[in-house]
Amino acid sequence: MFTGERKIFMHRIGVALVGFGTIGSGVVKILEDDSELIMKKAGVEINLKYVIDKDWQTPRSVEIKRARKISDYREALNDRDIDVIIELAGGTSFAYTLIEEALKAGKNVVTANKALLAERGLPLFKLARERNLSIGFEASVCGGVPIIRTVGDALVGDRVLSLYGIVNGTTNYILTRMFEENMSFAAALKQAQKLGFAEADPELDLNGFDAAHKIKILSELAFNTCINFEDVYVEGITNIQLEDIKVASELGYVLKLLAIAKLDPDKTVEVRVNPTLVQKGNQLSSVRNEFNAVLIESSYLGISMYYGRGAGSMPTASAVTADLVDIAKSIREPASTLKYSCFNNYPLKSIGDIETRYYVRFNVPDKPGVLSRISGIFGVNNISIASVIQKERSKTDYVPVIMTTHMAFEKDMIRAFDEIEKLYFSKQRGVKIRIME
Amino acid sequence: MFTGERKIFMHRIGVALVGFGTIGSGVVKILEDDSELIMKKAGVEINLKYVIDKDWQTPRSVEIKRARKISDYREALNDRDIDVIIELAGGTSFAYTLIEEALKAGKNVVTANKALLAERGLPLFKLARERNLSIGFEASVCGGVPIIRTVGDALVGDRVLSLYGIVNGTTNYILTRMFEENMSFAAALKQAQKLGFAEADPELDLNGFDAAHKIKILSELAFNTCINFEDVYVEGITNIQLEDIKVASELGYVLKLLAIAKLDPDKTVEVRVNPTLVQKGNQLSSVRNEFNAVLIESSYLGISMYYGRGAGSMPTASAVTADLVDIAKSIREPASTLKYSCFNNYPLKSIGDIETRYYVRFNVPDKPGVLSRISGIFGVNNISIASVIQKERSKTDYVPVIMTTHMAFEKDMIRAFDEIEKLYFSKQRGVKIRIME
Repeated sequence: MFTGERKIFMHRIGVALVGFGTIGSGVVKILEDDSELIMKKAGVEINLKYVIDKDWQTPRSVEIKRARKISDYREALNDRDIDVIIELAGGTSFAYTLIEEALKAGKNVVTANKALLAERGLPLFKLARERNLSIGFEASVCGGVPIIRTVGDALVGDRVLSLYGIVNGTTNYILTRMFEENMSFAAALKQAQKLGFAEADPELDLNGFDAAHKIKILSELAFNTCINFEDVYVEGITNIQLEDIKVASELGYVLKLLAIAKLDPDKTVEVRVNPTLVQKGNQLSSVRNEFNAVLIESSYLGISMYYGRGAGSMPTASAVTADLVDIAKSIREPASTLKYSCFNNYPLKSIGDIETRYYVRFNVPDKPGVLSRISGIFGVNNISIASVIQKERSKTDYVPVIMTTHMAFEKDMIRAFDEIEKLYFSKQRGVKIRIME
Repeated sequence: MFTGERKIFMHRIGVALVGFGTIGSGVVKILEDDSELIMKKAGVEINLKYVIDKDWQTPRSVEIKRARKISDYREALNDRDIDVIIELAGGTSFAYTLIEEALKAGKNVVTANKALLAERGLPLFKLARERNLSIGFEASVCGGVPIIRTVGDALVGDRVLSLYGIVNGTTNYILTRMFEENMSFAAALKQAQKLGFAEADPELDLNGFDAAHKIKILSELAFNTCINFEDVYVEGITNIQLEDIKVASELGYVLKLLAIAKLDPDKTVEVRVNPTLVQKGNQLSSVRNEFNAVLIESSYLGISMYYGRGAGSMPTASAVTADLVDIAKSIREPASTLKYSCFNNYPLKSIGDIETRYYVRFNVPDKPGVLSRISGIFGVNNISIASVIQKERSKTDYVPVIMTTHMAFEKDMIRAFDEIEKLYFSKQRGVKIRIME
């Protein structure tokens, strides 16, 4: 509450930003417009000296007032005034080279590049550590939710047990429209694209890989263990049918694309992304539209949840700024790289060994004895049935049988599924959706 | 992700804990059991050297293994190995002296004492600033939600516009039981006490002052402005009647005790605690039982929310530990005091000048013309009515008239209320509850 002068601890850092796109524009806006405010709030002066981009023809929404516009990032790397390189170039190839060269030139790095960190982060963090430099990456996961510093700093005295995240705004928007307005997947996607919640090429969002990048980074931070990105189980929402969303709703569930990381008592970790039924009333069930949320269960805090807008230019730019302030404060003793270390080396659980509840739906011939044979197959495969819905006879000879199960292993479920499908050929494959415990 | 040795940045701090109660026991447990884990996670060694308490007779649930048990805190202040004093003594008198002496002895401080910080924090922060020391206070507001570092650090590059918090677990538990089970206030309070969610003397919770302490601290952090605690408008839940919770529910609202801080466009701030109707579907409406949540609206992140268990021994102890790690990392350049400064000096808005929507209920004579006269009084006082419910005739001559209004000033509402009550004397006073925009 001290109101007087504050000169003693003023830190001044020089910054170069690479990639003047949507997020870059947001960062330029904050650093140029709010520099005095940040100085007052945090005692840190951030001097944006260069903005670097190959393309200076395309008009942007933000004007650069003070920083120099250049095209070659090496100019910034050679400038001794520059303490931090902000990497907003995207992709995993040029961005990798840029960060590697920046660290070798003694520059700290702030990045929003989740794909790069998830797929090729290891050697970069190792390099930063060796050179006594920081890599700030708050903006890489859920820009609008300070989840990296929550897991890395706030929970440092706690033990994280599990993370359940709605970490992709595009898919959550689509599933919300399907659930609330009975829209088809195709129509909901089209609306998401129209409103800017889905990109023209939404593949990485829809197939779950964007969420997988994020949960891979979060789980490494939470459990201090290294995960091979290739080993993460990923299932997107492209095969989700409106019918299942409707039936699940009758059963009291909302369908969400969850990114899940759990530390099991046997010290193996589960890391996966898959469509999941969440009980209505659970905090995650009310996360609607393009919003993100991460539910954390930890030994001491118990349940906590962090909710906000997932991405977007300004939320992400704000996260980049918070990282810059942290680096400015700790520039002589970088601590943020220390967050990222995998001393635990827990093995990753394979998808077959994962235990969860299931919702299943089969189209079966409308004949006596069918239900008993399906139940029998489940029983033989150690799967116990929790509830059954048999819908009224349809116009065809096939009727849908819907069941929810108690906890079952994925490998048992796969075996049972194969046996049931072999028994009752139908044009439509059976559906299985995991239920959140 | 570096897995090798990490000797270079190891910080070792000596710690003395004052107050071996419930939270103190939690802190001892974490610091003694998890010290190796914290060292690996954060590169910080926290050495708990003293636990200080007057009473060493009462048995505790946690055993002290390594720290020395002493009774005089001055011993710790005179020990050059001690870098941080953890104040868990509580109260605003001894705790003040302790923190003041600790700072003067060159010790950093971590405290969970919201009453002290809200009522007498200013000179302590000033002293810490002058002495180049830190005061960590994450544990003072919503132990289970890292809200201090979210407002202070994560949003450093943003501009907070408003905070809406359910920051008191006792009152939220009581309101949840009333809402969900039609319990009376008295019965719900009794159950809360039985389950440990309310203290034997719950006055400070029920009258809103605990929530007021918290929102005072949060609003100063968020807006960098100083607030006189005495000027904060506080209204508790002791006068809440089940009937209004039920009617409000029919209207689509849930009643919550909200702590509210807003920065208005005219650069005045509202800081208040009062029962508030929250629309069902709003994220805050589904915060049930003893849980806490703070909804923040900021310029760049937009809406974000932080949800978790409010208090309790282990959540609060975990927050204390996170502060210790921060201090250990920055021991040579304390930065956390910098968070707390009030360079903005915004004036506090008086309750009369606050604009909000209202739910009102009057008991009026069951005669023609009454509704029109009430509407008339509202109209004259610049209050526009949004909806009206007139319940069926009761056995008495009085009937309840229920209205919701559009945005209105509190001073207009008070005037209208007085006029209506003067007109229609009734045994029961009218009810007015604010509706969250």
